[in-house]
Amino acid sequence: MDLPELTAEIRAFAEARDWLPYHSPKNLVMAMSVEMAELLEHFQWLTPEQATAMAHDPVRRVPVEEEMADVLIYMLRLADVLGVDVEAAIRDKMAKNALKYPAP
Amino acid sequence: MDLPELTAEIRAFAEARDWLPYHSPKNLVMAMSVEMAELLEHFQWLTPEQATAMAHDPVRRVPVEEEMADVLIYMLRLADVLGVDVEAAIRDKMAKNALKYPAP
Amino acid sequence: MDLPELTAEIRAFAEARDWLPYHSPKNLVMAMSVEMAELLEHFQWLTPEQATAMAHDPVRRVPVEEEMADVLIYMLRLADVLGVDVEAAIRDKMAKNALKYPAP
Amino acid sequence: MDLPELTAEIRAFAEARDWLPYHSPKNLVMAMSVEMAELLEHFQWLTPEQATAMAHDPVRRVPVEEEMADVLIYMLRLADVLGVDVEAAIRDKMAKNALKYPAP
Repeated sequence: MDLPELTAEIRAFAEARDWLPYHSPKNLVMAMSVEMAELLEHFQWLTPEQATAMAHDPVRRVPVEEEMADVLIYMLRLADVLGVDVEAAIRDKMAKNALKYPAP
Repeated sequence: MDLPELTAEIRAFAEARDWLPYHSPKNLVMAMSVEMAELLEHFQWLTPEQATAMAHDPVRRVPVEEEMADVLIYMLRLADVLGVDVEAAIRDKMAKNALKYPAP
Repeated sequence: MDLPELTAEIRAFAEARDWLPYHSPKNLVMAMSVEMAELLEHFQWLTPEQATAMAHDPVRRVPVEEEMADVLIYMLRLADVLGVDVEAAIRDKMAKNALKYPAP
Repeated sequence: MDLPELTAEIRAFAEARDWLPYHSPKNLVMAMSVEMAELLEHFQWLTPEQATAMAHDPVRRVPVEEEMADVLIYMLRLADVLGVDVEAAIRDKMAKNALKYPAP
């Protein structure tokens, strides 16, 4: 599945559970922030070396991938609510970044 | 461009600026959290109605889309560093969510 | 107990558990961010009216107070590590804010 | 000034600028999260050693202290809105932590 298909699936999932009324942009951004912190939590007490090792450990990285997915699921839900094409948004921002941070 | 192409472009962008040494998983997650808060900031003082209206205003939503892109750029960078296929991670998490939250 | 006494107690608590080596400024700020998100989580799906009602409900507010305390405990730990007098820091920032946002 | 005096001053500051209507618990927690991320931002690309050195540099630490104060100002505003005694909340949480994490 590509992003538009995943976005439609995430919407259908929320709709089937009557969650859509909670999915205002403000609430979705808050919920996404909470998932982001759960991702952060995996790394908080690790040295940089331990963090890198943990993130590459096939077992211990599983919850890290799940938190990444949780952030992305809310991001796609927000993009759906706002009608944002995330791939286009990334491309546009990369073009701006290229002007802001010229390559040496 | 699809996600693998965007991921490669983001990596090349960082590489050309000698930023790769900073891109440990721990640092990338922190940087992504900061971008997430910049997205949150656009909504903090708005009523739910104002937040929804703002997010659909063609002019005022532009910085919101840019913050969404900033979060995603770091997410794709992190996924690249960790070797995570984000579309597969979302699909797997949706399957888990379906077990955790059965449809009524 | 006042803030200096609480700060000393928090340090002694961490010391007795051999946690001090983990309490670098970078790690403490990450840990505090995670506690902040746990505070945020209580409010994410509530309307402003529900959030206000919840926060004043004598039972449901208990975990909110605990998350506030968790943020503050890490803040006092960070202030201790950095040698910051938090009351003085607040006072100085309020003086700056008064210049930045003149009263009408 | 002690915390009750600072809390009263922060309330008067907001009142004089007609900000009180924006200070719902939900909004204050969001605003506090944003300030927390601004604190995090100072540390995101630093090694643990650089972060510690920066935080102790008398010049470079000034903005760090200001971000700490910004978080605390919103925390005291939230405590005021909710009628929370923050020193008591910290004390209570420390007592709970002592049960949860017994000293070795």
